[in-house]
Amino acid sequence: MIAIDWGTSSLRAYRLNGDGAICDLRRSTNGVLACAQSFDTALLEMIEGWDDALIVMSGMIGSRQGWQEVPYLECPAGLDDIAGAMTQLSAHMLTKRTIWIVPGLTTINARGHRDVMRGEETQIVGAISNLGNGNLLFCLPGTHSKHVEMREGRVESFQTAMTGEMFELLCKHSLLGRLMHLDAPHDSAAFLCGVDDALEPGDLLTHLFAVRANGLFGLLSASAQPSYLSGLLIGHELNDLPPTDRLHLIGSSALIAHYEEALDRRRIPFEAHDDVATARGIHVLAACRGLL
Amino acid sequence: MIAIDWGTSSLRAYRLNGDGAICDLRRSTNGVLACAQSFDTALLEMIEGWDDALIVMSGMIGSRQGWQEVPYLECPAGLDDIAGAMTQLSAHMLTKRTIWIVPGLTTINARGHRDVMRGEETQIVGAISNLGNGNLLFCLPGTHSKHVEMREGRVESFQTAMTGEMFELLCKHSLLGRLMHLDAPHDSAAFLCGVDDALEPGDLLTHLFAVRANGLFGLLSASAQPSYLSGLLIGHELNDLPPTDRLHLIGSSALIAHYEEALDRRRIPFEAHDDVATARGIHVLAACRGLL
Repeated sequence: MIAIDWGTSSLRAYRLNGDGAICDLRRSTNGVLACAQSFDTALLEMIEGWDDALIVMSGMIGSRQGWQEVPYLECPAGLDDIAGAMTQLSAHMLTKRTIWIVPGLTTINARGHRDVMRGEETQIVGAISNLGNGNLLFCLPGTHSKHVEMREGRVESFQTAMTGEMFELLCKHSLLGRLMHLDAPHDSAAFLCGVDDALEPGDLLTHLFAVRANGLFGLLSASAQPSYLSGLLIGHELNDLPPTDRLHLIGSSALIAHYEEALDRRRIPFEAHDDVATARGIHVLAACRGLL
Repeated sequence: MIAIDWGTSSLRAYRLNGDGAICDLRRSTNGVLACAQSFDTALLEMIEGWDDALIVMSGMIGSRQGWQEVPYLECPAGLDDIAGAMTQLSAHMLTKRTIWIVPGLTTINARGHRDVMRGEETQIVGAISNLGNGNLLFCLPGTHSKHVEMREGRVESFQTAMTGEMFELLCKHSLLGRLMHLDAPHDSAAFLCGVDDALEPGDLLTHLFAVRANGLFGLLSASAQPSYLSGLLIGHELNDLPPTDRLHLIGSSALIAHYEEALDRRRIPFEAHDDVATARGIHVLAACRGLL
């Protein structure tokens, strides 16, 4: 079968054998936003030469801006629920293929607000196929980081922190970015200083201005500023984590490395999982749905 | 004399009589960023026909990106200190004029970080010329909001919240802005909902995502989203205010109106001051320096 991870700004295709092992992998920047209405063409191009009949897709491709909207599934939701809510793509030009889309999840948080995810539920299904059905806490860093509480194999609740997007916004478009060397290498000392400072009293809105004011006084160099800012934001995100004896991290190794550094500093025990949890999750969901 | 309020993105000129009353007022968008190196020309154009010999300027015009850098003055700083640190512009093309620049202030906050202001110190000098030298707490909303503690006529300490800039960033450049009607009129109910939600547990990074998720579920309309976001951000800023029996607000009436709404909701007593505090402040400083 073919597993597709189709996000806002990236597209990944995995060719899986009968056991769910990855035989081949392709990546492109044809994310949902870049493809707009030409999803058929982008997918055909991506899987050229792979003749498998079954395709299962996960991520923003199932959103309102995607190929076909698949409603968010309400939490708590387990493997059976997610597999049961998978939806077959009704109209497409890929003859001899059956295409399914995995639903996203929604929850109402403790403050009474909606929250949503698309794609992360599949990564978690992949991760728990190795970890079992205990009570687990996940962190999936990214543009919109997700903190996910699992209870006995079901996604009980989750919340989103706009950490990655905020970093991009501040570096590219704010006054803070103007003094920065944006392409400077990671500066661990500055990063950890930011992680520590996030624990100080005060709101993020006031913490942020230290980047500029310390910069003006030469207390934070232009090349240290992006790392300090990253540490400050990740530190603020981690302030919202419930207490845990083990946090399960899922994401790309480059991003995960920064979270590992921050978690070590905070003495929060963690276990990192690789990024191909999506392919495994899609295989598990396809099997559960009886498609294999 | 002529009082000039020269900020990053705006320029205001006030012609004052001997008592400091405003005889004439001009505004332009020739802020420090727009003028770059042609400050002489911009100022000449602005004061055409006003033949007063004394010009005193305040704001970002004294920053590193301005006409001539005037070092930040260390807090605590009172009227005498600020007047004493005023610096005469050494080289300019405006013959028969004497031009002075008011210094900005700097402090080290409770977390050990630098903070800076330029222009707000002049507004405060203007405001306390009416209020006297008590222990006062000021809030000057804006791109970078300032909370300023005065003790016996001196600026004791202050801190900056990036409230206004964050609102702009999120509306114009973030995923949140994509679902919004950015030109919708102010929606008080949504605004106050944001002010209340800012008191809930959790970090700003997680609170923000509710704008999108509630929007996706039709719980927050596209036209209510900017007001909700504004309330959320102003609410977070107000979370950092020390307790007070009277907050003194200084700023433009449009912006102040939102803060008044939020402060009423939080039952924080306040007193609003008009926006021409800068002209009065410059007059007071010029007199204190013996220039009048």
